[in-house]
Amino acid sequence: MTVKALTFDTGGTILDWHRGIGGAFAAAGAARGLKADWAAVANEYRRRSLKGIVNAERPAYNFDDVHRAKLDEVIAEFGLDALTAADRDAIWRTWHALDAWPDFPAAAARLRKRYVVASFTLLTTSLVVDVSKRNGIDWDVIISCEMIGIYKTRPEAYRTAAKWLALEPADIMMVACHNFDLDAARACGYQTAFVRRPDEWGPGGPPDPNPNPACTVVVDGFAQLADKLLSDGGYSVQG
Amino acid sequence: MTVKALTFDTGGTILDWHRGIGGAFAAAGAARGLKADWAAVANEYRRRSLKGIVNAERPAYNFDDVHRAKLDEVIAEFGLDALTAADRDAIWRTWHALDAWPDFPAAAARLRKRYVVASFTLLTTSLVVDVSKRNGIDWDVIISCEMIGIYKTRPEAYRTAAKWLALEPADIMMVACHNFDLDAARACGYQTAFVRRPDEWGPGGPPDPNPNPACTVVVDGFAQLADKLLSDGGYSVQG
Repeated sequence: MTVKALTFDTGGTILDWHRGIGGAFAAAGAARGLKADWAAVANEYRRRSLKGIVNAERPAYNFDDVHRAKLDEVIAEFGLDALTAADRDAIWRTWHALDAWPDFPAAAARLRKRYVVASFTLLTTSLVVDVSKRNGIDWDVIISCEMIGIYKTRPEAYRTAAKWLALEPADIMMVACHNFDLDAARACGYQTAFVRRPDEWGPGGPPDPNPNPACTVVVDGFAQLADKLLSDGGYSVQG
Repeated sequence: MTVKALTFDTGGTILDWHRGIGGAFAAAGAARGLKADWAAVANEYRRRSLKGIVNAERPAYNFDDVHRAKLDEVIAEFGLDALTAADRDAIWRTWHALDAWPDFPAAAARLRKRYVVASFTLLTTSLVVDVSKRNGIDWDVIISCEMIGIYKTRPEAYRTAAKWLALEPADIMMVACHNFDLDAARACGYQTAFVRRPDEWGPGGPPDPNPNPACTVVVDGFAQLADKLLSDGGYSVQG
């Protein structure tokens, strides 16, 4: 079988949320004379936000709403109550203005010449639109779990994405830097590509996970992914 | 208020379905020694297909399925039963390989520099992906009614598109060559742009409709739309 579409996890895999959100906290904190381990604050914020959306089924909220609610929780927990409503709004809006990892936009453009290149994400549709315009990323299609109403890692999310792409799951390769997303995609019949993102959680964050050996391919970055998937006339999977 | 996003009807407005589908019928018919008014066959096929999907609510089928089912109906009605299964498949697949009107791709690229440019369509997600790759069209986002589960012209379709774009309807301009779509969008608070497509139904088809004077703008083509919306720092609507 031959891979026809690549579905990219976007929040953790494409966007440098740690530096962006940590920086937004640090800037707001400095303006209010606050001191904190901003990298740790950002990571706790990310952990809680993920926990608030992964596996959701037809929630009344989307990931932007979760980001807003968890922000106040984390600010309270770290004793940062001096942050004003305007500060909080600025931190929250930073999610829509994150930088992508520098190796992604060019690799995506190369890959689009042979594959359907899709964002397949927990993030809101509008967040992906905003960061993609900012970073010069052109997708063939954005599939946000907001559209599906069922969030990764529930099987119905992966099955719906395949249906919308009009492809068998085996013709799709899920690309992510996390095993949990790739394992769930593989259980639905997707091929899987693990891309190492050792700095996802910053230098003080958890270590980069070891890729599950069941992955179809494991690469160190997006240029390597493109090299591998564009060699010898497209990527064919044995089996 | 200022328009921030443009949502383009795609099937009738961007794609030259009449020439593509009429040509596919003519080619298949010639191979089987059949004679017919292929332009009329294509138009009847389009009419029935639209009737089978507009206003659908959570159907078990999508527009590709409707195109497949209505194809057999139209073939029977016009006495073209000699068309084989392979002929029918070839005609059906032509929907995913249509040409865009030549003035669209360049105008879309210009408009993306200032606006979010979205396909907002009855067509399936994969159909838009396929024709966009073929015609060199890059969208910021594809919003297929297949994703929403509720089809234009039902208000919930327009409201959901606005929600996913994270915009008020008044910040969105629906672009189409049909009043029915624009009227429904306007009723939900969208701005509206009527683009004349006099050849949509071919020379023997129904005349190009007269734009509803309630439209925000009326233009003769996509280059004119881009000129108008990109002049004087973006399009601001009085009111």
